[in-house]
Amino acid sequence: MAGTQIPAATLARRIAAARGTAEADLVIRDVRLFDLVTGNLFATDIAIVGDTIVGTYGDYRGTTVIEGRGRIAVPGFIDTHLHVESSLVTPMEFDRCVARHGVTTAICDPHEIANVLGRAALDYMLEGASRTVMDLRVQLSSCVPATHLETSGARLDAEDLIPYRDHPRVIGLAEFMNFPGIVHADAACLAKVEAFSDRHIDGHAPLLGGLDLNAYIAAGIRTDHETTGADEALEKIQKGMTVLIREGSVSKDLHALAPLLTVQTSPFLAFCTDDRNPLDIAEEGHLDFIIRTAIRLGVPPLAAYRSASLTAATAFGLRDRGLIAPGKRADIVLLDDLEACAVSTVLAGGVLVGPEAYAERAPVAPVGLDSMKARRVTPADFRVPGTGTSVPVIGVIPGMIITEHLTMDLPAADGGVLCDFDKDAVKVAVVARHGINDNIGRGFVHGFGLQRGAIASSVGHDSHNICVVGADDADMATAVNRLVAIRGGFVVVEGGKVLAELSLPIAGLMSDRPFEDLIEPLKALRAAATGLGVVLAEPFLQVAFLPLPVIPHLKISDRGMVDVDRFQLIG
Amino acid sequence: MAGTQIPAATLARRIAAARGTAEADLVIRDVRLFDLVTGNLFATDIAIVGDTIVGTYGDYRGTTVIEGRGRIAVPGFIDTHLHVESSLVTPMEFDRCVARHGVTTAICDPHEIANVLGRAALDYMLEGASRTVMDLRVQLSSCVPATHLETSGARLDAEDLIPYRDHPRVIGLAEFMNFPGIVHADAACLAKVEAFSDRHIDGHAPLLGGLDLNAYIAAGIRTDHETTGADEALEKIQKGMTVLIREGSVSKDLHALAPLLTVQTSPFLAFCTDDRNPLDIAEEGHLDFIIRTAIRLGVPPLAAYRSASLTAATAFGLRDRGLIAPGKRADIVLLDDLEACAVSTVLAGGVLVGPEAYAERAPVAPVGLDSMKARRVTPADFRVPGTGTSVPVIGVIPGMIITEHLTMDLPAADGGVLCDFDKDAVKVAVVARHGINDNIGRGFVHGFGLQRGAIASSVGHDSHNICVVGADDADMATAVNRLVAIRGGFVVVEGGKVLAELSLPIAGLMSDRPFEDLIEPLKALRAAATGLGVVLAEPFLQVAFLPLPVIPHLKISDRGMVDVDRFQLIG
Repeated sequence: MAGTQIPAATLARRIAAARGTAEADLVIRDVRLFDLVTGNLFATDIAIVGDTIVGTYGDYRGTTVIEGRGRIAVPGFIDTHLHVESSLVTPMEFDRCVARHGVTTAICDPHEIANVLGRAALDYMLEGASRTVMDLRVQLSSCVPATHLETSGARLDAEDLIPYRDHPRVIGLAEFMNFPGIVHADAACLAKVEAFSDRHIDGHAPLLGGLDLNAYIAAGIRTDHETTGADEALEKIQKGMTVLIREGSVSKDLHALAPLLTVQTSPFLAFCTDDRNPLDIAEEGHLDFIIRTAIRLGVPPLAAYRSASLTAATAFGLRDRGLIAPGKRADIVLLDDLEACAVSTVLAGGVLVGPEAYAERAPVAPVGLDSMKARRVTPADFRVPGTGTSVPVIGVIPGMIITEHLTMDLPAADGGVLCDFDKDAVKVAVVARHGINDNIGRGFVHGFGLQRGAIASSVGHDSHNICVVGADDADMATAVNRLVAIRGGFVVVEGGKVLAELSLPIAGLMSDRPFEDLIEPLKALRAAATGLGVVLAEPFLQVAFLPLPVIPHLKISDRGMVDVDRFQLIG
Repeated sequence: MAGTQIPAATLARRIAAARGTAEADLVIRDVRLFDLVTGNLFATDIAIVGDTIVGTYGDYRGTTVIEGRGRIAVPGFIDTHLHVESSLVTPMEFDRCVARHGVTTAICDPHEIANVLGRAALDYMLEGASRTVMDLRVQLSSCVPATHLETSGARLDAEDLIPYRDHPRVIGLAEFMNFPGIVHADAACLAKVEAFSDRHIDGHAPLLGGLDLNAYIAAGIRTDHETTGADEALEKIQKGMTVLIREGSVSKDLHALAPLLTVQTSPFLAFCTDDRNPLDIAEEGHLDFIIRTAIRLGVPPLAAYRSASLTAATAFGLRDRGLIAPGKRADIVLLDDLEACAVSTVLAGGVLVGPEAYAERAPVAPVGLDSMKARRVTPADFRVPGTGTSVPVIGVIPGMIITEHLTMDLPAADGGVLCDFDKDAVKVAVVARHGINDNIGRGFVHGFGLQRGAIASSVGHDSHNICVVGADDADMATAVNRLVAIRGGFVVVEGGKVLAELSLPIAGLMSDRPFEDLIEPLKALRAAATGLGVVLAEPFLQVAFLPLPVIPHLKISDRGMVDVDRFQLIG
């Protein structure tokens, strides 16, 4: 609850404007306020002084006036958990890209860039967060590296995180992905939990239930965004968690969880995007998309809008927001339509979201421009020794980051296992790129439909080594080498030629360009992958999650294939 | 959100017990957990380590076992606003008296004793609060003195309160009674609000609405417990306040506000007792009485129990409680019946509420034993000069602290106004008792039905001068002088004889006896007053609120009659 004290002179200005004895700084005239108590619409003005609402349910005069023209006012949306890096742009561009969708608070975990750059990543993200128009909060990444089963670019121990505890942009500790570490009382994990036991600690506990879930929550973990089933969600909220219903670009849990969200359960359920790419943001939207989809799935608008604001604010102890009411932050979304969540105008902390506000932000210097330190690879690097019998194969599930642990008999020649296109089994490799070692992990993946060429990405959760899926060893080598040359990003290669690419020079994760500039290259990459036979809607997102060794069941790292259920390397 | 960090070793113990790999310290076996998510009952054990719940929805082993025998488990109740002084016992006795009713957290405002003793009162209450079995929290009294219209024993300015900001028992600033001071941006008021603008600030805003209410809330006031009507409550919660539905001994708002409390509105409504006397606690109960009455009035049990725990915890930022769930404080009430709120067993922070726990508390030395400093009075002190025409008369409303501003023509003789028993108009006087001056305020009151004698009290909100209501000047003098002799309390006098009395030697407000010892004297006082013709159910409580000059409409202080609406003395 600690925060900044408000000077008496500011209080006096708020009071005078609230009473109507002085002009407010800004008045939104003639809106229909969607009241989160009753679920009804009420005609009113909204008066604002500085970044704070001072008056509702009344008529007001303001130095500046925005004409509401009967539009519907709802509290700004809070994205409770996301990785800015997944938008492929900088925090400043994320701000431009997402606030227009009604997101006035975003709680991010800089886990991706932190795995590449460590504390320099935290500094960079906090610097950006201090300049955004939206209120961007930075949780401190709790699991860098996520596991000992891969080579990350950095390591963050408790003593690295503690200096950031009291930073005004920090709420607490980000998703504690190493839930086995908590459940088994690992000392390094508990050192971090202890250091933040008087702060908020986010969770990450896919499929965890029963007594192990009790242990995880008893350690002080408050939220979970990895819940994929309604029964799983119900158990978690009955045990006191706030479940953050996720609808990202890869993981889409809203359809499964929406039936649970009613006015009665709304205090226990919030929303998040986790990982949402710029194409989906452009084509579908962001939290506005989640809200309108939830309502379309039968969630009462009152429940959906409560979850998107009040519940989220409560869950994270943000007592200054979540309602359009006097004394709250002026985070206000004007809608043309409530059920369609058609966002018309957005105010973040009393600032009109738009070009003028964005132009006033001081720029932030990029970091991690030399982060692609992989050695040059050759086709021979992608040979997988073996006889081809009982080969573990990652089974990709479209739209899910959970994978299946398959076992296949594959063809072999000269002591090397080969792709089997009839079985849709192609090669996958992870090439270390942090300059620490020259590891290459190799294996097979099912579900891409790839018939030729290779696709590669320097986005590869969570250590962000280079992940390449290929039908051809030479194309795999070309793709990896090209990625290093363009300082990271995505590339599609066929027959030794680059068909499409996007450079992400900031830590190999984020573009240095405006978000609009990414749309066409991303479409070209998707089209190029489809041209190689790929059947997945978002091939690069699915590539990016193949290495993630904290998500069941079979994954791959630079050290080899990982059986997540047994939490060990298998070859 | 800041608090104490939890050592890793403690976390490890919680985790092991939660998983069932080690015994819990305490297990409540075989309860039916009332789930605040679904409103359903689920059979389970509850495992506890230290003061914290570690496991629900499972079978557990414990070093100590409490057999639930199918009883219903609900989260401990939170009384969101009360004055311990109104229970007429010390904090330690309040603990004994009230925790048995399921109250595991009580948020008190030591406003009464602070008006007598100032900072020494805060120290005394905080000392007591640090030893209670229940979690007693002390808000810092914001309005001492409540107004300039009376003589208090002490004064607390912002600089007096600031040293207590970070005390672990303090949440923030107590009810800001001087709402006109806020609305008119009084400098001393705003200095206090500024100093606590990053903490919780409680409100007190009877009948405040419209733009003035906006101003009050915009200043940062979060709660209100003075709401008496459903429309008033709806406006306040729609403007972002949490309304604390009060059912005390004098002010009883539950019947008026219960229709507003549904599952949908339950996140915005909590409960409080404000002022509840030991007779009512003994005869009716405490928060258990409010819950069962609410349910009887048609409030869904799910809404009632949420308001009594989760909503209250959320409103005050107490993120460690409000649910029976892993990681939460082990504040648990076992009920024999849900709808009747029949409390059977109470655990506060994992401690079984009962004689054993109470015996372990170290005693706290009493304070304010010499606080009755009024000069000796004579019958002549109660003469009211005047002609008897158009006399302002306080109109008492049974069970309400709001009064009517009446005007009556009364008899007079020798230039002095007399009582008129046919019109039920008798004398009322307030005698200063803090040793600062010898003020006596005089006037008339309607509604007591007093026919002879006098009743007097050193409990007289908020400055706690001596308030005496009398049919006879000599009996008024006898009553006042007797009160001083017994170091404060209550007294009933007729014909120069003391009919009943109770000594309250701690600041003239609290007994130094066990709470059980107060029941018979209080009954005797009530009977004695009734014997004098008094028609009010709680005559001493109504006497005690006659001086309260922050409650409309007509009151009396040591300086004279007070027109609260105009906030000025009238003679």
